[in-house]
Formats: sequence, structure tokens, C-alpha cells
Amino acid sequence: MKPRLQKLLSRLKQENLDGLIVSSPANISYLSGFISSDAYFLVSKKDCIYFTDSRYMEEVRPKLKTVASLKKIEGSVFNLIADTCIGLGLERVGFEERHLPYAEYKKIKEFLKAKLYLIPSHNLIENLRQVKEPKEIEKIREALRITGSALEFIKDFIRPGLAELEIAGELERFIRYNGAGEAAFDIIVASGPNSAYPHHRPGGTKTQKGLPLLIDLGVDYLGYKSDLTRVFFLDKIKGLNRRIYEVVLEAQSRSIASIKPGIEIARIDGLSRNYIADKGYAKFFGHSLGHGIGLETHEAPSISAKNDGILVPGMVFTVEPAIYLPGKFGIRIEDMVLVTNKGCEVLSGFIDK
Amino acid sequence: MKPRLQKLLSRLKQENLDGLIVSSPANISYLSGFISSDAYFLVSKKDCIYFTDSRYMEEVRPKLKTVASLKKIEGSVFNLIADTCIGLGLERVGFEERHLPYAEYKKIKEFLKAKLYLIPSHNLIENLRQVKEPKEIEKIREALRITGSALEFIKDFIRPGLAELEIAGELERFIRYNGAGEAAFDIIVASGPNSAYPHHRPGGTKTQKGLPLLIDLGVDYLGYKSDLTRVFFLDKIKGLNRRIYEVVLEAQSRSIASIKPGIEIARIDGLSRNYIADKGYAKFFGHSLGHGIGLETHEAPSISAKNDGILVPGMVFTVEPAIYLPGKFGIRIEDMVLVTNKGCEVLSGFIDK
Repeated sequence: MKPRLQKLLSRLKQENLDGLIVSSPANISYLSGFISSDAYFLVSKKDCIYFTDSRYMEEVRPKLKTVASLKKIEGSVFNLIADTCIGLGLERVGFEERHLPYAEYKKIKEFLKAKLYLIPSHNLIENLRQVKEPKEIEKIREALRITGSALEFIKDFIRPGLAELEIAGELERFIRYNGAGEAAFDIIVASGPNSAYPHHRPGGTKTQKGLPLLIDLGVDYLGYKSDLTRVFFLDKIKGLNRRIYEVVLEAQSRSIASIKPGIEIARIDGLSRNYIADKGYAKFFGHSLGHGIGLETHEAPSISAKNDGILVPGMVFTVEPAIYLPGKFGIRIEDMVLVTNKGCEVLSGFIDK
Repeated sequence: MKPRLQKLLSRLKQENLDGLIVSSPANISYLSGFISSDAYFLVSKKDCIYFTDSRYMEEVRPKLKTVASLKKIEGSVFNLIADTCIGLGLERVGFEERHLPYAEYKKIKEFLKAKLYLIPSHNLIENLRQVKEPKEIEKIREALRITGSALEFIKDFIRPGLAELEIAGELERFIRYNGAGEAAFDIIVASGPNSAYPHHRPGGTKTQKGLPLLIDLGVDYLGYKSDLTRVFFLDKIKGLNRRIYEVVLEAQSRSIASIKPGIEIARIDGLSRNYIADKGYAKFFGHSLGHGIGLETHEAPSISAKNDGILVPGMVFTVEPAIYLPGKFGIRIEDMVLVTNKGCEVLSGFIDK
């Protein structure tokens, strides 16, 4: 983890900070190498400190190695963090403004007793995390391998008359027998009209011949996530189903074909969006085209019209155009790509569509 | 949901607030009756407004009925919330300081352009949620019924040589075939020495004859959670295992025997803690005795030495004393209780120990 801390310390210097209070669990995992919850992490040039309570102490201790010292939370963690900052002689300490609730900010501020400046900081670690290291990409590949096997398995399993929740249950079981630690998010299984809800929660609705069955599945492999959507039809795909499916598929391939270093992120979103609009479905595709993925299912970069950044080699993100026809059905096709030096690799390209 | 909104509006009046910006998903679910994520809710005497984006609009609309109006988030939600507050002519608006990140507070504050006071508020809805309505208790009972069936099923399934993750996978599948929407949290399956980590993440460790196997399972039934821990032994329980198990069981029954309206919450924690201390294991029981449970797995009241409140009929919480011997094993026994008018009902009492 040391090189990551080094990079972060350089960023802090640029921001004129000599410390950073990290409260995002994913950011703490990234810096400490230990999948963390109920923890805080203090980064500074002099020392890095991992704060956690009695439930995690024994588990964390051997894993931190030389990366950070460990302090046990007893009483107020905010008092402890403030005292530690003061004890280290820090002068300007940042905090993650997107990940610190107002109440916690207020408490740390009070305990600091104006002995140093507490300064909001924004996405310092998230921006580092956008570009994946080879070891991270390997874990993402493994998460996708498990996802692909799970979809192969479920393709053989599905037939008319199954409840969405039964399919979700089979997937939850399968991934744990095949190397995943858990699902990356609540698996979406949406039959027929339910597929028109982008974030449908699986329930008792039964699969039916000829109706689309949308499955959006991700797994966690050693902290790294996958996220993939396929639509099955339990029959020959025809009529409006087929027309919409083809529009979404073509939209996706137009976006993917243009992914390479240096290109504007908003343009990648626009390629799918404009194609869908040309076909007359603009108002049925409301969400952004995709999102970065790694330690979190949704992380930077957001692949949306609002992102004014450009693509950089090592970024990993989803490409998931969709058309949702309320009361009828929805089609979303989601793959994961890696920006390479010359273009991109569709990391989930081996999974049948 | 209307009576809940009425109660909240009375509380706001006491706090001298004429509006409240609700950002906790569980609190929004409680007020709106719709399980929410990526949403905000504004409560005021004049109108209540549910803010969400295109992904959820179609799903939310029919469910809000007369409880609240619906506004679609396009552009900045913080601008929209601020404009809505100004438009309603509000003067003193609270926000949930534990559930609003500093960055979001800052943005709402900016958009309000000092046209009204933005005031931190604390646990207003959480305190209402502590006392469950009969309909909520019925959902919790159903969540426990599913949990009990799952443990019956797994008792027949377990044998030496199974990976923790395989057991977790079987449970994940079973609960979805039996009425649960999902697990309430990452199911803990901890074999042998892993059981000494209170929040162990299941992995490849295999069950072994004579080693304790700790399972901490909760399910979600229509938004309401269960949370229950049992330890199995795959053999006759003996030696230190037996001694520790008996201490934890006796600690738990001492706490449960004293639960009734009016008693200090800290005392309930103390009864288990003191008994465990008397037996010489004080430093091996680091966490609090339990926690309220309902729409969230962990909610008010916390059953800990720090809580200076008293028990009230309708509270539902866990009682989970434990002893964790690092490197050896841990025993935790967790049940769920309901405070009744005269004493308490162990809601999970039908599940074998």
C-alpha cells in the first residue's frame, strides 16, 4: 500500500494539507489494504493511524503490517482523532467532505479547540482510485469470471414459472460456491414489466415465455466488484422486444468503439444517447451511460454528459445504455471495459449476449 | 403513513422548526412507506415532497398516494431542495446532521442564499421509530419466522468439511425461497478460531467436528429486519466450549429476565456484563449488549452502558452477550425481544438454542 500513501501525500502537499482524515470505508480499504468498516484513518507524513473498535482490533492488527499504526476506539472516536492530530503537531488537516456527516465534522471541529485548521477536501483518494493498478485489474477479472460462470449456470436454470427471488437466490448461492465473497449489490432480477424499473427489487413475479428477464449481477472478489446486465427471453426474441434490444446493442457498440485514452468522457455518453434519441427513445433513457467500478460498484469516473474529464489508460467502467418503456419492459445491456494504451478491452467480452 | 407525519410535525413544532430535510433512507422509508434509496424527503406542514431521479419515478409514483408530492431530480438536487423550501415560505428548516454529509450541507446552505435558517437536528425520526407499531411488529415476526426456518434447514445441512461461504450461500438461497427479500446484512458464518472475530467475513475455512460454528443471520421482510446468532458444534459440546457457552447463556438470561418498561437500559447491559466479568471474562466482551432493530439492523435504542434512557413498551432490540477468546473461539448468543406492557416477549424464543 505504501506507493498509494506516497502518491496521496504528494497530493496533500499540493493542496497545502499536512494531514487527511479518511472516513470512506472504500478509501480506507484502498490505503490500508484491509477491507474496513467502522473505522477511520489518519494520513500524515509523520505517521498513518488506523482507528477501530474492539470488534475489529484482532483482525486488523496482523494485516496493517508497516502501513499504519493502530489505535483502539474507546469513548469518543472524534476526540481521539482530534487529540491524535494535535499530538502529531499537524496544522492543516483535510477531511472528506462527501463522506463525513455534518455531525461528525462538528464534533471533530469542537475537539480540535481551534488548535489547527480543518479543511474540506474533495475526491483526493477517489481520483487516485480511478486508474487501476495491474493487481486491481486482476481482481476485477476474477470477479467477472465468477459473474460469467453464474450467468452460464442461470441460463440453463431459467424456465417459465420461476419467481424472481428464486433466481436471485440461486445466483447468491452459486457465486459463493465459485469464489465470490458476496454479491456486489442487491442482484436485480426483473421479469416482464418489472424490467422497466432500472433498480427493481426482485419479488414474487414469475418468469413467462416471451417476456424479457433482466438480470443485473455483480460479485465481490477480495474487495473488487463486477457489474453486468443481460436480458434473457425464454423464447425467440421478436417484435418490439427485438427492435428495442437492437437499438440498445447498437448504442452500446458505438460508445465502446470510441473508447480510448484522451477522448472526452461526455462524448462516450453522447454516442449512445444520441443514437437512442435518433431512434425516437430519448426520454426512455434517463440515467448516465456508466460508472467507474473497483472497490465500490459505483465510483469515479462517472460516464455522463456532466463529466468534463477525459479517459486515461487504466480506467475501468461500465457501459450500460438502456431503454425503459413504462408498463411494457426495459432493456439494459451492461458491460465492463478497461481503457488501454491504444483503445479499450471489453473485460466482460467473453460473456454471451 | 399519515399518523407518523403528524407525530413528526408535532416534534418539529417543539423544536421550533417548520420543516425538515430527511436524507436517511430508512427514515424516508418510514415516512413515505416506500423503501427508498437515492432520495430526499422534505417534511413541512404545508406539503411533504419526495425527491428522486428518473430511475425511481415510475416505481414511486403509485406508492406515495396522498402522503407526499413527487419531484423529479434533474440537475442539482440541493438546488431543488433549497428552492422548494424557499417556495414553501419556510423559515427554520432542520436537517439530519448524522445523515447529511458535510458537502451536501454546504451546497444546500449555499443555494438557500441566507433566505432561511438551516438547523442541525438529531434523531427526531429515529426516536419515533424506537417504539414499533403492531404492523411493524408483525413484519419483524415474519422476518424471524424465515430466520428460524433457515436455521432449522442449515442444522440438517451442516457437517464437517464445508466452507463457511458454502453455508452462507445455502442460507442466501433458502431465505429467498421462503419469503425474504434479501439478507439483512452480510451473513456471518465463522468456523473455529474465526468465531473470535465478532464481524468475521465468511471465507474458505472449513467446518470441523468439535469446533464451534457461529452463524449470525438476519433477513429483510418488506423492509423489516431480523438479527439472530446461534453457535453449533457438529458434535457434543464439551470442555472450555461448554463452560464459555454456559456463561454467555446465563448472562443473556439474566438480562432478558429484567427487561420491562421503566427499567434503565444501561442496567440491562450491566446485568450481562457484570456476570461475564464475575466469571473472569470481562475483557473478552467488548461490544454493547444489543441494539434496536426494525427498518435498520442497527437502530435506536442502543442497549449499552452509555444509554441513559429507559425501556418503553413497543421497543424491539437484540440481546447478544458474547465472549471472544482470540486465537481460540468466540461464543455469541443473540435473540430479539419486544418490550411489552408488563415485561418482555422473546420474539425469537421459538428458535432452538
